[in-house]
Amino acid sequence: MPQKKIITIVGAGMMGSAMATPARDNGHAVRLVGTPLDDHIISRARYDGYHPTLKEQLPGGIEFYTVADLATAMAGADLIIGGVSSFGVDWFSEKVLPLLQPGQNVLSVTKGLQDYPDGRLRPFPELLAERLPAALRGRISFSAIGGPCTSYELARRRQTMVYFCGTDAAAVATARDLLATAYYHITPTADVLGLECCVAMKNAYALGVSMAIGLWGGADERQGFNPQAALFGQSCREVTRLIRHLGADTDLVANIPFAGDLYVTIFGGRTRRLGTLLGQGKSMVEAEAMLSGVTLESVAITRRVVAALRALGAAGKVQLADYPLLMHIDDVINDRRPAALPWDALR
Amino acid sequence: MPQKKIITIVGAGMMGSAMATPARDNGHAVRLVGTPLDDHIISRARYDGYHPTLKEQLPGGIEFYTVADLATAMAGADLIIGGVSSFGVDWFSEKVLPLLQPGQNVLSVTKGLQDYPDGRLRPFPELLAERLPAALRGRISFSAIGGPCTSYELARRRQTMVYFCGTDAAAVATARDLLATAYYHITPTADVLGLECCVAMKNAYALGVSMAIGLWGGADERQGFNPQAALFGQSCREVTRLIRHLGADTDLVANIPFAGDLYVTIFGGRTRRLGTLLGQGKSMVEAEAMLSGVTLESVAITRRVVAALRALGAAGKVQLADYPLLMHIDDVINDRRPAALPWDALR
Repeated sequence: MPQKKIITIVGAGMMGSAMATPARDNGHAVRLVGTPLDDHIISRARYDGYHPTLKEQLPGGIEFYTVADLATAMAGADLIIGGVSSFGVDWFSEKVLPLLQPGQNVLSVTKGLQDYPDGRLRPFPELLAERLPAALRGRISFSAIGGPCTSYELARRRQTMVYFCGTDAAAVATARDLLATAYYHITPTADVLGLECCVAMKNAYALGVSMAIGLWGGADERQGFNPQAALFGQSCREVTRLIRHLGADTDLVANIPFAGDLYVTIFGGRTRRLGTLLGQGKSMVEAEAMLSGVTLESVAITRRVVAALRALGAAGKVQLADYPLLMHIDDVINDRRPAALPWDALR
Repeated sequence: MPQKKIITIVGAGMMGSAMATPARDNGHAVRLVGTPLDDHIISRARYDGYHPTLKEQLPGGIEFYTVADLATAMAGADLIIGGVSSFGVDWFSEKVLPLLQPGQNVLSVTKGLQDYPDGRLRPFPELLAERLPAALRGRISFSAIGGPCTSYELARRRQTMVYFCGTDAAAVATARDLLATAYYHITPTADVLGLECCVAMKNAYALGVSMAIGLWGGADERQGFNPQAALFGQSCREVTRLIRHLGADTDLVANIPFAGDLYVTIFGGRTRRLGTLLGQGKSMVEAEAMLSGVTLESVAITRRVVAALRALGAAGKVQLADYPLLMHIDDVINDRRPAALPWDALR
């Protein structure tokens, strides 16, 4: 058991909050800070320790903070866990990064890739490092978590295997020592781009596989397995091509971070529901309305990566025909085509 | 549409019989021959065209034969589809191979690998070629089908993507031309060992992933996804190592034949049921009794491959620690240990 430390989690959504479980089980002091969207969560958790979206009692001993007390919550912390979604990255950059002190390393649960007009795709740890105030550059290490981990199962201490990635091997090792438990298994890796690409793209492709559930699944959604399996394999093919294009390692595709995580993401919740609705013939406008208008990570990452691929395609740097499933998902979520899956174009 | 041919399917089980659907949809003459175990199926199908285990009406126009008329059914056929399971390979070798005529190529649905005392593992197409009567050697080509295809969904014409493998590219292309339809998509490959290894091992690993359903899934079997996803990824890791050891290509792992097929196999039927029972703490003896005493492909292939790995391990040619999940599955199905999954040994 390592020395007890102070861990501040910024973002009290489901995934950020679930990280409190291994942190508290290892005896660390845990401070959980809500973003501006999390006030209701912090209020309820302060009242009786119950997390209303995780639908789980949090471990005892957590200190809760609203965003107004962000600076206090971060002061003296040994590790900052970035618990925001990709929609919170700009907020995190603006509000959290300037409060960091040298040596306060950041471990992020954020899933996604940043796209640029020229087709570049970059992982968030790299982006955050670049956005550090000048005085902090090179004095804070950014790591990130990838792998199949539904927040509610981590909060219930189900066996979970994830990767921690970062270019600073010592910072990754320290984060691992602080958080590894008998149920939370952590493999360190220096392959940031490969891991983050798996993490981001499994959301996009889970949407594609789920369309097959809507197209062919019966009322119990337990049929249409041949098409789902074909699309599962096609997803692996396409992400392998994308990672090769990015010049990163493809070892994590036939492994826990892509194939394993795609498996769990298909069952994980709203992405499956959205894909199923689209497969049943609903338009994106109708389907999003049925899902309370929430924009999902899967939709955001598809749009970002397809925008990048179109730029690269126009520049002759990729063949769009290598990504028929992803391009089809993009067509469907932008209401250009109904879900019909381009079987003869798959390769 | 290719010229109409005569296709004889030997083995009237679910998978063999389902092949009649694309064959008939392409207008070929189809002869479906039962093995000695299939008399009841042939009787019923002759009566009203219904297949009692597929639980589906077969396409019209099929000619049905019992094993007594095997020679008649094979005479003049352009393609022989070997529709037996791995438990029928010796019967097929003894009874079917001697009846072949030069140029009557064989396309097999059989899943598995043959193990040898020295640890060698060989795909069935190679084994069948070796078992040909001397006069036929080199005059019959053997191909095989791999990929995610539940028989009942093929019979219902669900979108399905498979691979046909063989060392004779012309024979593979001919079989593809005969059987490809708008719903049955076929990718040819010369990578027989890589494909057959995926085909065989996904059954073994589906058993391992399913144990997590029994260990952590709730009454609806919809929980325990973090452990399932971890084991799904671990399965991909281990089969990649096995294929590398065999000197074959690993491209089909992050692809339809392994990851895609593992996905569908976990939902496919009795292997999931067996794994779930074992995960719930039943012994193998108890679990097999609950499954009517049928020995599954998943159990057979695990025993074969682990026997080979133990021989190779003893000779210093592999590290058994590279296959912790497979070794655990073997321990459980031989009642040496309860299902408990070696989390700290996974790598």
